[in-house]
Amino acid sequence: MSFSAFDHASMSQALRLAALGMNTTRPNPRVGCVLAVRNEVVAEGWHEVAGGPHAEVAALDKAGPAARGSTAYVTLEPCSHHGRTPPCADRLIEAGIERVVVASVDPNHAVNGTGLERLRAAGIAVQTGLLGDQAEALNAGFFKRMRSGRPWLRVKAAISLDGRTGLSNGDSKWITSAASRRDVQAWRARSCAMLTGLGTVMADNPSLTARVEDPPLRPLRVIADSHWRTPPGSRVLDDPGTALIAGLADSAIPPELADTGVTCLPLPGSVDGVDLGALLDGLGERGINEVQVEAGARLCGSLLRGGFVDEVLVYLAPVLLGEGGPGPFALGELESMAGRTYLEVIETCAVGPDLRLRLTPGTGESADAAGDE
Amino acid sequence: MSFSAFDHASMSQALRLAALGMNTTRPNPRVGCVLAVRNEVVAEGWHEVAGGPHAEVAALDKAGPAARGSTAYVTLEPCSHHGRTPPCADRLIEAGIERVVVASVDPNHAVNGTGLERLRAAGIAVQTGLLGDQAEALNAGFFKRMRSGRPWLRVKAAISLDGRTGLSNGDSKWITSAASRRDVQAWRARSCAMLTGLGTVMADNPSLTARVEDPPLRPLRVIADSHWRTPPGSRVLDDPGTALIAGLADSAIPPELADTGVTCLPLPGSVDGVDLGALLDGLGERGINEVQVEAGARLCGSLLRGGFVDEVLVYLAPVLLGEGGPGPFALGELESMAGRTYLEVIETCAVGPDLRLRLTPGTGESADAAGDE
Ligand SMILES: [Zn+2]
Ligand SMILES: [Zn+2]
Repeated sequence: MSFSAFDHASMSQALRLAALGMNTTRPNPRVGCVLAVRNEVVAEGWHEVAGGPHAEVAALDKAGPAARGSTAYVTLEPCSHHGRTPPCADRLIEAGIERVVVASVDPNHAVNGTGLERLRAAGIAVQTGLLGDQAEALNAGFFKRMRSGRPWLRVKAAISLDGRTGLSNGDSKWITSAASRRDVQAWRARSCAMLTGLGTVMADNPSLTARVEDPPLRPLRVIADSHWRTPPGSRVLDDPGTALIAGLADSAIPPELADTGVTCLPLPGSVDGVDLGALLDGLGERGINEVQVEAGARLCGSLLRGGFVDEVLVYLAPVLLGEGGPGPFALGELESMAGRTYLEVIETCAVGPDLRLRLTPGTGESADAAGDE
Repeated sequence: MSFSAFDHASMSQALRLAALGMNTTRPNPRVGCVLAVRNEVVAEGWHEVAGGPHAEVAALDKAGPAARGSTAYVTLEPCSHHGRTPPCADRLIEAGIERVVVASVDPNHAVNGTGLERLRAAGIAVQTGLLGDQAEALNAGFFKRMRSGRPWLRVKAAISLDGRTGLSNGDSKWITSAASRRDVQAWRARSCAMLTGLGTVMADNPSLTARVEDPPLRPLRVIADSHWRTPPGSRVLDDPGTALIAGLADSAIPPELADTGVTCLPLPGSVDGVDLGALLDGLGERGINEVQVEAGARLCGSLLRGGFVDEVLVYLAPVLLGEGGPGPFALGELESMAGRTYLEVIETCAVGPDLRLRLTPGTGESADAAGDE
């Protein structure tokens, strides 16, 4: 099965359309659709907001009768189930689409494959996998949640060249440039939830909202707080309907905290606080696709050691902070190099004077074995 | 004064030729020369080794009578003094060159400007400044030594993402990949001298030579060692004619150390060991253009605080080493962010799984002032 240059260009465009829903489709995935007849685009659409039209429907509505005989380029397998809207597979069939090209197959087990089967059964030519990696990366959170029940976890860290996130006196404002701090807001805006710990709430009193020009849905602000000590007047609780505190089930929730209206999620404990796997299960159940962690070394270290981290977003400032300050992840003292934690750099770019690195957990394989001085 | 596309291409080629002498011209600068008649290259040359022909002479010898009427593209102002070889300015005049294009003017005060004057006095058209920044960067060490009497100081550091250069138990082998460790050798090979401290000699017993395929001149291995405690059997002394120990003048040199034949440079003291400015003056007097520092946090920190560092070459491994290990520069604990040390990233590239960053001392101006959370 091969794809033409026009196929590639059209799916690329569908991916760009899908990304227009970056901050607004949750808990749904970001999806784009291009309709073309004989290598001429006749309509485009994308999913904008949950409850609104799916990408395919948006494009079909725009195309009207011109959709007949067209090829539909869709970044995700068309749905075949009756959700808030009628199944897109049926709409494509009714509209007389001749061929459907899909980037990524829907990971949702309730849907998986059946959308494609229904199209094929109606005599439509179906091809899959075109720019599939990009389509999956665009919805890494949705895919992970569908497959594992847990959200995609991105840890953001602002560090100096000597690996410090602050001074020994607790000052951490500001290590990175204003340009980097603006850039962080875009990553918050695309996140379904922000996760922090009580220590950060007490030290910095952050609001953990996304300050972007076109304010998106407010992310769910999640505080890991074993003993329910978050001060009721904290900024993170200023809109308690979009905040959640995860504490220990066997620790009593203070009435003044419950009275704020914040969601309290009692969880089992682990060696160093709430059971983070249970917390992530709970967020997955709430339809959270992407979580951005902005927290202290202790929580970030626990998440990393627990294998819960999917991505690390590092803003590396070309400054030196000297001794005594904390690092990004509390991992204890290593007894040998064999105990190191490997990551893998997947993207590097300059943000103002800083470098932004994206990393994923790695194996260290490419670091090779022996070497000389 | 403007330059043609051919001028640019020719000077670019002259710079590439100059770089062929990267590891071998010291203490002389790297210089390349292209001779062209009516936009046709007639000969090329470069300076290969001190005592050998200068770039202009190498090109003129190849061109023979074809040099007459040509334009000479030279990366550095032709010399006008009788050194180990006759002045290049005279050779260019004798050869009937019509025009000389020079990238960078010689910073040497004994020469500065007089080469150009002599050419102009002979009726040759002279233009300067074409790709001058590149030409100067190629000889940053030579330019710095001519202007200040001190070498260009490059500090190499291999650090983890959390800014550690080793573990608390002293283990630092290996943080970066084999690819990075190979890359380091090329930077050693171009250096006139390597500088380390007694701590590194005791901990790692490095030889500090450049292990490259085409072995260059061995760099001068310099050990900052206040009290002359370098063990006479250290690898760094295995060729004592290319080693130098810088210690305190008021501390006695042990006879068994002097007996190795190593050069001992007695220096005044400063708060934390030998006076590093005096050490660099001493290296400048010995014709050292580029120094690569591979040392522990204490010496690197002293060099940085003293303002002696021109460039930092960081190999950043995407690994986490946790708590307790040293950072690259001992700078003490900061009391406020205002005390941070600013650097500026001038180059980023991937080396195997690692990132290589080149930085220079910076002002922090581009980091902006105020910001939000
Ligand atoms: Zn649908
Ligand atoms: Zn010369």
